Amino acid sequence: MTDMTKTTSGSLIAAEKVNGTNVYNTAGDKLGSVDDIMLDKASGRAIYAIMSFGGFLGMGEKYHPLPWSSLKYDSQKDGYVVDLDKKQLQDAPHYDQSSPFEWTPEYGRRVDSYYNAPHYWS
Amino acid sequence: MTDMTKTTSGSLIAAEKVNGTNVYNTAGDKLGSVDDIMLDKASGRAIYAIMSFGGFLGMGEKYHPLPWSSLKYDSQKDGYVVDLDKKQLQDAPHYDQSSPFEWTPEYGRRVDSYYNAPHYWS
Repeated sequence: MTDMTKTTSGSLIAAEKVNGTNVYNTAGDKLGSVDDIMLDKASGRAIYAIMSFGGFLGMGEKYHPLPWSSLKYDSQKDGYVVDLDKKQLQDAPHYDQSSPFEWTPEYGRRVDSYYNAPHYWS
Repeated sequence: MTDMTKTTSGSLIAAEKVNGTNVYNTAGDKLGSVDDIMLDKASGRAIYAIMSFGGFLGMGEKYHPLPWSSLKYDSQKDGYVVDLDKKQLQDAPHYDQSSPFEWTPEYGRRVDSYYNAPHYWS
Protein backbone atom coordinates (compact mmCIF):
# COMPACT_ATOMS: atom_id res chain seq x y z
CA MET A 1 0.00 0.00 0.00
CA THR A 2 1.23 3.46 -0.75
CA ASP A 3 0.32 6.82 0.63
CA MET A 4 -0.42 8.03 -2.85
CA THR A 5 -3.49 5.91 -3.29
CA LYS A 6 -4.81 7.43 -0.11
CA THR A 7 -4.95 10.81 -1.73
CA THR A 8 -8.51 12.01 -1.80
CA SER A 9 -10.30 14.32 -4.12
CA GLY A 10 -13.34 16.24 -2.96
CA SER A 11 -15.71 13.34 -3.32
CA LEU A 12 -13.50 10.25 -3.47
CA ILE A 13 -11.80 8.56 -0.58
CA ALA A 14 -9.59 5.50 -0.41
CA ALA A 15 -11.14 2.56 1.42
CA GLU A 16 -8.11 2.40 3.64
CA LYS A 17 -8.80 5.90 4.74
CA VAL A 18 -12.50 5.44 5.49
CA ASN A 19 -11.41 3.11 8.23
CA GLY A 20 -10.81 5.42 11.14
CA THR A 21 -13.27 8.08 10.02
CA ASN A 22 -15.22 9.49 12.94
CA VAL A 23 -18.93 8.85 13.42
CA TYR A 24 -21.14 11.39 15.20
CA ASN A 25 -24.72 11.54 16.37
CA THR A 26 -27.00 14.32 15.19
CA ALA A 27 -26.14 16.38 18.29
CA GLY A 28 -22.53 16.42 17.11
CA ASP A 29 -21.13 14.09 19.79
CA LYS A 30 -18.51 11.67 18.60
CA LEU A 31 -19.79 8.11 18.99
CA GLY A 32 -16.87 6.18 17.61
CA SER A 33 -15.20 5.48 14.32
CA VAL A 34 -15.42 3.21 11.31
CA ASP A 35 -13.39 0.07 11.83
CA ASP A 36 -14.02 -1.46 8.42
CA ILE A 37 -16.54 -1.56 5.60
CA MET A 38 -18.36 -4.64 4.40
CA LEU A 39 -18.72 -4.50 0.63
CA ASP A 40 -20.79 -6.56 -1.73
CA LYS A 41 -18.07 -8.42 -3.61
CA ALA A 42 -19.73 -8.24 -6.97
CA SER A 43 -21.04 -4.68 -7.06
CA GLY A 44 -18.49 -2.99 -4.80
CA ARG A 45 -21.31 -1.35 -2.94
CA ALA A 46 -20.78 -0.65 0.76
CA ILE A 47 -23.45 -2.55 2.69
CA TYR A 48 -22.34 -2.14 6.30
CA ALA A 49 -19.98 0.07 8.21
CA ILE A 50 -18.46 -1.73 11.15
CA MET A 51 -18.45 0.88 13.87
CA SER A 52 -16.11 0.68 16.77
CA PHE A 53 -17.34 2.15 20.04
CA GLY A 54 -14.19 1.93 22.04
CA GLY A 55 -15.18 2.60 25.59
CA PHE A 56 -18.13 4.77 24.62
CA LEU A 57 -21.31 3.99 26.53
CA GLY A 58 -19.12 2.27 29.09
CA MET A 59 -19.33 -0.84 26.98
CA GLY A 60 -15.68 -1.54 26.24
CA GLU A 61 -14.61 -2.26 22.69
CA LYS A 62 -17.66 -3.33 20.74
CA TYR A 63 -18.42 -3.57 17.05
CA HIS A 64 -21.75 -2.49 15.68
CA PRO A 65 -22.53 -3.22 12.04
CA LEU A 66 -24.61 -0.34 10.72
CA PRO A 67 -26.37 -0.39 7.36
CA TRP A 68 -24.43 1.98 5.15
CA SER A 69 -27.68 3.72 4.26
CA SER A 70 -28.04 4.84 7.88
CA LEU A 71 -24.84 6.90 7.67
CA LYS A 72 -24.84 10.36 6.17
CA TYR A 73 -21.55 11.91 5.22
CA ASP A 74 -21.00 15.40 6.61
CA SER A 75 -18.26 17.17 4.71
CA GLN A 76 -17.90 19.89 7.34
CA LYS A 77 -17.26 17.33 10.06
CA ASP A 78 -15.33 15.15 7.63
CA GLY A 79 -17.17 12.26 9.21
CA TYR A 80 -20.40 10.30 9.19
CA VAL A 81 -23.51 11.18 11.12
CA VAL A 82 -26.05 8.65 12.36
CA ASP A 83 -29.43 9.45 13.84
CA LEU A 84 -29.35 7.07 16.78
CA ASP A 85 -29.62 7.58 20.51
CA LYS A 86 -27.73 5.76 23.21
CA LYS A 87 -30.53 3.31 23.96
CA GLN A 88 -30.86 2.36 20.30
CA LEU A 89 -27.16 1.62 20.08
CA GLN A 90 -27.06 -0.38 23.29
CA ASP A 91 -29.85 -2.64 22.10
CA ALA A 92 -28.52 -2.98 18.55
CA PRO A 93 -26.81 -6.12 17.22
CA HIS A 94 -23.14 -6.04 18.11
CA TYR A 95 -20.24 -8.29 18.91
CA ASP A 96 -17.01 -7.97 20.79
CA GLN A 97 -13.50 -9.25 20.71
CA SER A 98 -14.03 -11.89 23.35
CA SER A 99 -16.39 -14.06 21.35
CA PRO A 100 -16.08 -15.53 17.86
CA PHE A 101 -18.10 -13.80 15.18
CA GLU A 102 -19.16 -14.83 11.72
CA TRP A 103 -21.42 -13.10 9.26
CA THR A 104 -24.50 -15.11 8.48
CA PRO A 105 -27.56 -14.15 6.45
CA GLU A 106 -29.56 -14.44 9.67
CA TYR A 107 -27.31 -11.95 11.46
CA GLY A 108 -27.44 -9.60 8.49
CA ARG A 109 -31.22 -9.72 8.43
CA ARG A 110 -31.30 -8.87 12.14
CA VAL A 111 -29.15 -5.80 11.48
CA ASP A 112 -31.24 -4.68 8.51
CA SER A 113 -34.47 -5.09 10.45
CA TYR A 114 -33.20 -3.31 13.53
CA TYR A 115 -32.37 -0.19 11.54
CA ASN A 116 -35.30 -0.47 9.14
CA ALA A 117 -32.76 -0.59 6.34
CA PRO A 118 -33.29 -1.94 2.84
CA HIS A 119 -32.85 -5.71 3.04
CA TYR A 120 -29.58 -6.89 1.60
CA TRP A 121 -30.14 -10.58 2.30
CA SER A 122 -32.72 -12.43 0.30
CA MET B 1 -8.70 -3.25 13.18
CA THR B 2 -9.58 -6.76 14.14
CA ASP B 3 -9.44 -10.01 12.29
CA MET B 4 -13.07 -10.57 13.07
CA THR B 5 -14.33 -7.81 10.89
CA LYS B 6 -12.45 -9.40 8.03
CA THR B 7 -14.65 -12.43 8.20
CA THR B 8 -16.51 -12.78 4.96
CA SER B 9 -19.81 -14.31 4.15
CA GLY B 10 -20.52 -15.65 0.69
CA SER B 11 -21.21 -12.28 -0.83
CA LEU B 12 -19.73 -9.75 1.58
CA ILE B 13 -16.10 -8.90 1.98
CA ALA B 14 -14.33 -6.46 4.27
CA ALA B 15 -12.75 -3.52 2.47
CA GLU B 16 -9.46 -4.33 4.14
CA LYS B 17 -9.59 -7.72 2.54
CA VAL B 18 -10.36 -6.55 -1.00
CA ASN B 19 -6.97 -4.92 -0.95
CA GLY B 20 -4.67 -7.68 -2.06
CA THR B 21 -7.29 -9.57 -4.06
CA ASN B 22 -5.86 -10.91 -7.31
CA VAL B 23 -6.87 -9.54 -10.71
CA TYR B 24 -6.82 -11.76 -13.80
CA ASN B 25 -7.35 -11.27 -17.50
CA THR B 26 -9.97 -13.30 -19.33
CA ALA B 27 -7.33 -15.90 -20.27
CA GLY B 28 -6.85 -16.57 -16.56
CA ASP B 29 -3.40 -14.99 -16.26
CA LYS B 30 -2.78 -13.07 -13.07
CA LEU B 31 -2.20 -9.40 -13.90
CA GLY B 32 -1.73 -7.99 -10.46
CA SER B 33 -3.76 -7.22 -7.38
CA VAL B 34 -5.99 -4.57 -5.90
CA ASP B 35 -3.97 -2.04 -3.92
CA ASP B 36 -6.89 0.03 -2.72
CA ILE B 37 -10.41 1.06 -3.60
CA MET B 38 -11.56 4.61 -4.22
CA LEU B 39 -15.05 5.07 -2.85
CA ASP B 40 -17.54 7.83 -3.31
CA LYS B 41 -17.66 9.30 0.19
CA ALA B 42 -21.36 9.95 0.25
CA SER B 43 -22.78 6.81 -1.34
CA GLY B 44 -20.08 4.32 -0.36
CA ARG B 45 -20.01 3.08 -3.93
CA ALA B 46 -16.68 1.78 -5.23
CA ILE B 47 -15.69 3.95 -8.20
CA TYR B 48 -12.14 2.81 -8.95
CA ALA B 49 -9.95 -0.10 -8.05
CA ILE B 50 -6.32 0.91 -7.82
CA MET B 51 -4.51 -2.00 -9.41
CA SER B 52 -0.92 -2.71 -8.65
CA PHE B 53 1.07 -4.32 -11.46
CA GLY B 54 4.21 -5.10 -9.56
CA GLY B 55 6.78 -6.00 -12.14
CA PHE B 56 4.21 -7.33 -14.60
CA LEU B 57 4.73 -6.11 -18.17
CA GLY B 58 8.28 -5.28 -17.14
CA MET B 59 7.03 -1.94 -15.94
CA GLY B 60 8.06 -1.97 -12.32
CA GLU B 61 5.56 -1.02 -9.65
CA LYS B 62 2.78 0.93 -11.32
CA TYR B 63 -0.72 1.86 -10.24
CA HIS B 64 -3.59 1.72 -12.69
CA PRO B 65 -6.95 3.12 -11.60
CA LEU B 66 -9.63 0.96 -13.21
CA PRO B 67 -13.30 1.86 -13.18
CA TRP B 68 -14.95 -0.55 -10.80
CA SER B 69 -17.50 -1.40 -13.49
CA SER B 70 -14.71 -2.91 -15.62
CA LEU B 71 -14.00 -5.57 -12.98
CA LYS B 72 -16.07 -8.70 -12.77
CA TYR B 73 -15.86 -10.79 -9.63
CA ASP B 74 -15.17 -14.48 -10.27
CA SER B 75 -16.08 -16.54 -7.23
CA GLN B 76 -14.20 -19.62 -8.49
CA LYS B 77 -10.98 -17.64 -8.84
CA ASP B 78 -11.82 -15.63 -5.73
CA GLY B 79 -10.57 -12.65 -7.67
CA TYR B 80 -11.53 -10.04 -10.22
CA VAL B 81 -11.36 -10.47 -13.99
CA VAL B 82 -10.79 -7.63 -16.44
CA ASP B 83 -11.11 -7.86 -20.20
CA LEU B 84 -7.95 -5.98 -21.15
CA ASP B 85 -4.91 -6.96 -23.17
CA LYS B 86 -1.32 -5.97 -22.50
CA LYS B 87 -1.33 -3.09 -24.96
CA GLN B 88 -4.46 -1.60 -23.46
CA LEU B 89 -2.92 -1.67 -20.01
CA GLN B 90 0.38 -0.20 -21.12
CA ASP B 91 -1.35 2.76 -22.72
CA ALA B 92 -3.82 3.28 -19.89
CA PRO B 93 -3.58 6.12 -17.35
CA HIS B 94 -1.26 5.13 -14.54
CA TYR B 95 1.18 6.55 -12.06
CA ASP B 96 4.13 5.27 -10.13
CA GLN B 97 5.84 5.76 -6.83
CA SER B 98 8.51 8.06 -8.18
CA SER B 99 6.22 10.96 -9.02
CA PRO B 100 3.62 12.78 -6.96
CA PHE B 101 0.03 11.92 -7.73
CA GLU B 102 -3.22 13.63 -6.94
CA TRP B 103 -6.74 12.79 -8.03
CA THR B 104 -8.29 15.53 -10.10
CA PRO B 105 -11.57 15.55 -12.00
CA GLU B 106 -9.53 15.82 -15.19
CA TYR B 107 -7.56 12.68 -14.38
CA GLY B 108 -10.75 10.86 -13.43
CA ARG B 109 -12.37 11.80 -16.71
CA ARG B 110 -9.34 10.46 -18.60
CA VAL B 111 -9.68 7.13 -16.82
CA ASP B 112 -13.42 6.92 -17.43
CA SER B 113 -13.02 7.76 -21.10
CA TYR B 114 -10.16 5.32 -21.65
CA TYR B 115 -12.23 2.40 -20.43
CA ASN B 116 -15.54 3.65 -21.84
CA ALA B 117 -16.87 3.59 -18.32
CA PRO B 118 -19.87 5.49 -16.99
CA HIS B 119 -18.69 9.00 -16.20
CA TYR B 120 -18.29 9.62 -12.52
CA TRP B 121 -17.09 13.21 -12.83
CA SER B 122 -19.55 15.86 -13.91
